[in-house]
Amino acid sequence: MTQVYFDNAATTPMRDEVIEKMTEVMRQYYGNASSTHGLGRSAKSLIETSRKTIASFFNVHASEIVFTAGGTEADNLVLRSAVRDLGVTTIITSKLEHHAVLHTVEQLQKEYNISVKYVKLLKHGVVDLQDLEGLLQTSDQTLVSLMHINNEIGNTLDLQKVAVLCKAHQALFHSDTVQSVSHYQLNLQSIPVDFIAASAHKFHGPKGVGFAFIRKGSGIKASIFGGEQERGYRAGTEAIHNIVGMETALKLSYENLEAERKQISELKAYFIEQLKNLSPDITFNGNCENAENSTYTVINVCLPIAPEKGGMLHFQLDLKGIACSKGSACQSGSNQNSHVLSEILTADYLMKPSVRFSFSRFNTQAEVDYVISVLKDFI
Amino acid sequence: MTQVYFDNAATTPMRDEVIEKMTEVMRQYYGNASSTHGLGRSAKSLIETSRKTIASFFNVHASEIVFTAGGTEADNLVLRSAVRDLGVTTIITSKLEHHAVLHTVEQLQKEYNISVKYVKLLKHGVVDLQDLEGLLQTSDQTLVSLMHINNEIGNTLDLQKVAVLCKAHQALFHSDTVQSVSHYQLNLQSIPVDFIAASAHKFHGPKGVGFAFIRKGSGIKASIFGGEQERGYRAGTEAIHNIVGMETALKLSYENLEAERKQISELKAYFIEQLKNLSPDITFNGNCENAENSTYTVINVCLPIAPEKGGMLHFQLDLKGIACSKGSACQSGSNQNSHVLSEILTADYLMKPSVRFSFSRFNTQAEVDYVISVLKDFI
Ligand SMILES: Cc1ncc(COP(=O)(O)O)c(C=O)c1O
Ligand SMILES: Cc1ncc(COP(=O)(O)O)c(C=O)c1O
Repeated sequence: MTQVYFDNAATTPMRDEVIEKMTEVMRQYYGNASSTHGLGRSAKSLIETSRKTIASFFNVHASEIVFTAGGTEADNLVLRSAVRDLGVTTIITSKLEHHAVLHTVEQLQKEYNISVKYVKLLKHGVVDLQDLEGLLQTSDQTLVSLMHINNEIGNTLDLQKVAVLCKAHQALFHSDTVQSVSHYQLNLQSIPVDFIAASAHKFHGPKGVGFAFIRKGSGIKASIFGGEQERGYRAGTEAIHNIVGMETALKLSYENLEAERKQISELKAYFIEQLKNLSPDITFNGNCENAENSTYTVINVCLPIAPEKGGMLHFQLDLKGIACSKGSACQSGSNQNSHVLSEILTADYLMKPSVRFSFSRFNTQAEVDYVISVLKDFI
Repeated sequence: MTQVYFDNAATTPMRDEVIEKMTEVMRQYYGNASSTHGLGRSAKSLIETSRKTIASFFNVHASEIVFTAGGTEADNLVLRSAVRDLGVTTIITSKLEHHAVLHTVEQLQKEYNISVKYVKLLKHGVVDLQDLEGLLQTSDQTLVSLMHINNEIGNTLDLQKVAVLCKAHQALFHSDTVQSVSHYQLNLQSIPVDFIAASAHKFHGPKGVGFAFIRKGSGIKASIFGGEQERGYRAGTEAIHNIVGMETALKLSYENLEAERKQISELKAYFIEQLKNLSPDITFNGNCENAENSTYTVINVCLPIAPEKGGMLHFQLDLKGIACSKGSACQSGSNQNSHVLSEILTADYLMKPSVRFSFSRFNTQAEVDYVISVLKDFI
């Protein structure tokens, strides 16, 4: 059966080179990186090389990269410590953030009674920077948490602008960059963001590993306590195979960035064109139709299908071998509506089925054609 | 060069079958377990099968097993939530616990101002159960955290007895079983422990994955917030390859338990005998000489070597291809004295070098002979 994987914003297939490297590490470098003998030292050295390589892509110091068990943990680490250790009493975020940020902020609100403000959204879910500036007029110790690229609708944020704005108002700035690391070059010497979070399984690396960038001198402390791993930022024996796998995947992504960006951007443009040809009533959620203000890897489309029929759409796409998402990304297999679409769509659009298609270098135009042919039967 | 790996309490070499299984999972089951399409469902199904298999070894419900990024995170999850969500105001533990417990408890003391009591230790670092019983005479909501097997000196605790004692005093009981899971059969239907923690890399599985057993109805909540993974106990995209690797490793361990226990026990007995032959002044730290009250995988030995010469011992062993530990297990490569040995040894013994040798099924008698021949030059 045809198999089309258009769910790369949920997770990506691993690159063969990554699997091979990880297998080699698992076979040969089994020492505990905390052990002082030769096997321990070579494990340690692999980790530190990975850290240096990864840091170099962001033009930061190796010591500013902290390995975690994924993007969620990286978000949690930064947000929790900011409140507990840096005296943050106000968090400004948006209703379109990933749950790794939203639910963590809600939990911190319960535990620490901090004040949480949600920035206004303009049309298509665009963050209102004027409103943000207004919210920043406060003497509270504030942290802003806004994602670089939205995982559901692909909207991009002007990181540079927001970072400068936060700095001008003495606010800390954390950005969940899980959907942009590997797709965009981020020079953190010129972007004055304090923290970012990333996850390897979004760029053809392994699941269960990610990292936080924590700018030097920020004062962030651990959320998981125990051994002295990660210089005290995060206790627990390091998953060397996963870390090296992440490094390998990120390296391959950045080495091939231009070619892959071109290929995927063209694919997305082609897909949009084909969708428009399919029906003039198809609408695009968020900014995803706009190549300037959205990532090249995501399309989120609202289909002109009646609810009775629409309810079967995902089931049918699945039967036809098409893996895509209900608009709701990395969430549980529940039938809940996407919290992102609920924020930005009116009730009549929410009634219709929305689908997120997300791409990687492994996708082809023939796959788009196949998906379009299947959608044709529905519309 | 001869290579002898006698540091299995720090971490173990992975079994080939585990690496093969993980490679297969990474190649074929790359879906996000939260996705509802076929690839997501098969990923989910792998995880749930692992959960069931692992639960079966402890005679508990699958829903009582929560996957984490390792033993440290499992300890943190239980301890933090016990204080935050279960109203625990007193923690009773011992100075010989792993830092994953000790440092977490210290942190919770700072954050929540809980009361922390350290149970008295008898000779050889044995937990004084009478003292424990005395400490339990309190109306405070209490949690006891005592490890099943000490990672440095191998002392075992009578889990059943302690669990019953805690229950009799309405105290919660958490046991760090990182060093015993896979080496001992733990029937948690008959042992009324509330929580345990385990880590795959201690039993020939991958690093960066472990689990907590959380008894049904305990009220424990998440420490990492975000998606609904692990039924809300622990957010973050699941590391499927690591989870299946852990399942595979644990299965192989328990399937071969008797044979491996016999082999390793004999090796340990042989090693002890050879050490005694080497010098009558060799002493054993903790209970490790005593097969009844210590695990069959660990020897911790204090060698009659003068400090000048002793300082070079680890370096020399490493040069000779022998991987072992300074008594201090999974800790940083620092030269700090082991916190465990510092508690149980007198100053004159602390001056002499102690070495922990820890074994797995992959070790042989010839390796013991080699190590003895190298030690001979020192003594
Ligand atoms: C007794 C004990 N508890 C906890 C841990 C920590 O587990 P992990 O290495 O998976 O973080 C270890 C070893 O590192 C250990 O020996
Ligand atoms: C924007 C965003 N943040 C955070 C996460 C969570 O990262 P992880 O899956 O590594 O826990 C995801 C995806 O799952 C994401 O898309």
